Amino acid sequence: MLEDLKQTVLEANKLLPAYGLVTFTWGNVSQIDREKGIVAIKPSGVPYDELKLDDIVLTDLDGNIVEGDLNPSSDLETHLEFYRNWSNIGGVVHTHSQWATSFAQAGLDLKALGTTHADYFYGAVPCTRKMTDEEIQGDYELETGKVIVEEFKTRGIDPDEVPAVLVHSHGPFVWGKDAKKAVENSVVLEEVAKMNATATLLQNNQIDSMQQVLLDKHFKRKHGPNAYYGQGK
Amino acid sequence: MLEDLKQTVLEANKLLPAYGLVTFTWGNVSQIDREKGIVAIKPSGVPYDELKLDDIVLTDLDGNIVEGDLNPSSDLETHLEFYRNWSNIGGVVHTHSQWATSFAQAGLDLKALGTTHADYFYGAVPCTRKMTDEEIQGDYELETGKVIVEEFKTRGIDPDEVPAVLVHSHGPFVWGKDAKKAVENSVVLEEVAKMNATATLLQNNQIDSMQQVLLDKHFKRKHGPNAYYGQGK
Amino acid sequence: MLEDLKQTVLEANKLLPAYGLVTFTWGNVSQIDREKGIVAIKPSGVPYDELKLDDIVLTDLDGNIVEGDLNPSSDLETHLEFYRNWSNIGGVVHTHSQWATSFAQAGLDLKALGTTHADYFYGAVPCTRKMTDEEIQGDYELETGKVIVEEFKTRGIDPDEVPAVLVHSHGPFVWGKDAKKAVENSVVLEEVAKMNATATLLQNNQIDSMQQVLLDKHFKRKHGPNAYYGQGK
Amino acid sequence: MLEDLKQTVLEANKLLPAYGLVTFTWGNVSQIDREKGIVAIKPSGVPYDELKLDDIVLTDLDGNIVEGDLNPSSDLETHLEFYRNWSNIGGVVHTHSQWATSFAQAGLDLKALGTTHADYFYGAVPCTRKMTDEEIQGDYELETGKVIVEEFKTRGIDPDEVPAVLVHSHGPFVWGKDAKKAVENSVVLEEVAKMNATATLLQNNQIDSMQQVLLDKHFKRKHGPNAYYGQGK
Repeated sequence: MLEDLKQTVLEANKLLPAYGLVTFTWGNVSQIDREKGIVAIKPSGVPYDELKLDDIVLTDLDGNIVEGDLNPSSDLETHLEFYRNWSNIGGVVHTHSQWATSFAQAGLDLKALGTTHADYFYGAVPCTRKMTDEEIQGDYELETGKVIVEEFKTRGIDPDEVPAVLVHSHGPFVWGKDAKKAVENSVVLEEVAKMNATATLLQNNQIDSMQQVLLDKHFKRKHGPNAYYGQGK
Repeated sequence: MLEDLKQTVLEANKLLPAYGLVTFTWGNVSQIDREKGIVAIKPSGVPYDELKLDDIVLTDLDGNIVEGDLNPSSDLETHLEFYRNWSNIGGVVHTHSQWATSFAQAGLDLKALGTTHADYFYGAVPCTRKMTDEEIQGDYELETGKVIVEEFKTRGIDPDEVPAVLVHSHGPFVWGKDAKKAVENSVVLEEVAKMNATATLLQNNQIDSMQQVLLDKHFKRKHGPNAYYGQGK
Repeated sequence: MLEDLKQTVLEANKLLPAYGLVTFTWGNVSQIDREKGIVAIKPSGVPYDELKLDDIVLTDLDGNIVEGDLNPSSDLETHLEFYRNWSNIGGVVHTHSQWATSFAQAGLDLKALGTTHADYFYGAVPCTRKMTDEEIQGDYELETGKVIVEEFKTRGIDPDEVPAVLVHSHGPFVWGKDAKKAVENSVVLEEVAKMNATATLLQNNQIDSMQQVLLDKHFKRKHGPNAYYGQGK
Repeated sequence: MLEDLKQTVLEANKLLPAYGLVTFTWGNVSQIDREKGIVAIKPSGVPYDELKLDDIVLTDLDGNIVEGDLNPSSDLETHLEFYRNWSNIGGVVHTHSQWATSFAQAGLDLKALGTTHADYFYGAVPCTRKMTDEEIQGDYELETGKVIVEEFKTRGIDPDEVPAVLVHSHGPFVWGKDAKKAVENSVVLEEVAKMNATATLLQNNQIDSMQQVLLDKHFKRKHGPNAYYGQGK
């Protein structure tokens, strides 16, 4: 059943290594069929290049397996919590992509520093509070989803306008209208995190410019009437 | 009409992903035919690998579409403002390339720190002032161009000698005698931004050198009469 | 003899350049056959792409060569010290991979900052104390192994739970149940070191967010009823 | 004449882009035939992928062209100053490789921080003093060579033991017994500069470790009797 949904989710999962967002099996993508209330998700621990159509697991919104022989991603319950609470989203991605994860590890929101960010995320991508011991030791993956949904509610952030979150000491979850869009948003999140990290590095930029005479020498060695670089003249 | 110009602009746009300067559709290149007063530019939102000759849009210097079925890049008006004000330039590039954009997001000029910079840019690549609310809410892309032209005028910078700018909280615009040269200058801007960011990181370099005896051990393990690394002797 | 062991070690060594963990010949992998007490290891100074099955050197646990015409890796004695002391491990990797080595050069433990780390290493990956002059000038590679084993004992770290170490001013040694798992752990160590270095960079993140009006402009240029980016509408 | 020398220099130049050490034409390699007193060097401004055997320029030790129709690299005089002063070296490389150049731009020696450095360079790779206006405005490339040779003499550094230098506000020159070895040393210099830059970043590492309970959760989710990640059990 739902071969198209499974095919879409298969392809979206294979995009993760293609975009350099994952190492080994560290990521998973799901998509929901809202009409049928069925979610298709990557199986746990299967390498992307070995992943086949029939490996994709189908579950209902309570996490009951409807089709598939493999265990679903251990992050399934986090995905489901999003689908249950946010009715406009259709696809979810989880990765440990390097730059976004660095912000999660530092416990920092990814602030909107420029228009690249603004083109995709309408404000800071929030970093959640630390989870409590009870949440971690309880139904951990479900509680992760609850903490995220709570964070958006408490801060008054619309998940349709900011389709990503950083889980404290963990990494990003990203979503969109479908799995493919969620992957696209994951790529952008990583790009923006990279740029913002570098911008942060530049905060205390106090380094001196080069000597004017050396600037003259090199520019004029290549440009203007006295240039002597290359094979010209 | 102007098939050569369109072909040149097509190829120059395809260089952006080849040089790693863009993600998805985040960049555009144009070139002007000064004699005819016609500008060829990338259409908005079309992926580089799907871009065909007939997708390239031709406009006059007021932005009226002369040929082409697609919407031109939303940055068209910024390009045109350059062509109208700076008579020596023939090609313009806009990207969100990572390192240059980081400087734009930090609101910092890219200072001339070394001869790599000096070979292409005769002094700091300026970062513009922030745009006013009126400029942003008005004819935004045109106003972006005006703020850039103003920045060069106010600071007395010759756009032929410093063929690039960083737009505050946004990213770089780069130009040159034609589209191909503008792309080359974009590559160099990115390289120089990368080097300058790293040089900035080194400002407070206070880390200790290794022990002399360990230096001796390793150097002499591989070099001189008592070397024992590898298959030698 | 032990063709399977040699084949496994050959393939594991070739994974080092495939995963970008080595430059030139800067790394080596070994695996032990516990039943026979034989260790297979890369020969010293041979490039990975020239490495053949018969180049792999077999030694006993005292370092006596049992088979092979080439000198074993100069780090052999460090590997053997691990096999002699830690009975559960089956494979050892040494590299100078960039990010892990940076922590070794800074003389810092790689702290557990996030779940990527926690999925593989149960606590900080320790950096050893500096070696003494006597240790360096004595049987250096053996002493390196001893310092590492001492570090784990003194700190009460279980090498089965934290399968990696950073040798001060040098680089990482990594292990696992076999050579392949030790290589996998080496990849993870490098990823985690990269993420932790970036998280460190973010500590003093004080950069200002962009203007709200510019955020509005760019988000709404691409999303919602007034979007005008791309070819839509 | 000297076809072998020209072939060696041709191949060594083509290694520069292969190792990611150059952008466009920003680098050159030479080698000397000590017996004949002839130096073979890359022509100025010719892209590496267009470089042919007959493009290689032969000169004597005074810079007189002995064979070749093209202008030699503008850095020729710097190379020659090394060959005239340091009798053991046979090959010279100049690049603007990113990480080494960043140290040059920051005006900093590349200190020996670890054994990767010690395996190739017996102590810090020095950064030269700034050149004087007279030196820059005079016979610039020759003066560059003189400043480097002076730096090694003044500091008592043996160019055979530290086969590289950083020219202030410019970039690295690297040498070795022949062109191929000089390229190898250039690769190592870049690697070491990268590692040292990262080690510098870590100096003020004060970031907190993750919660113990989250560390427990994730490690034990994948390891030990209660693991539930993947398809096992």
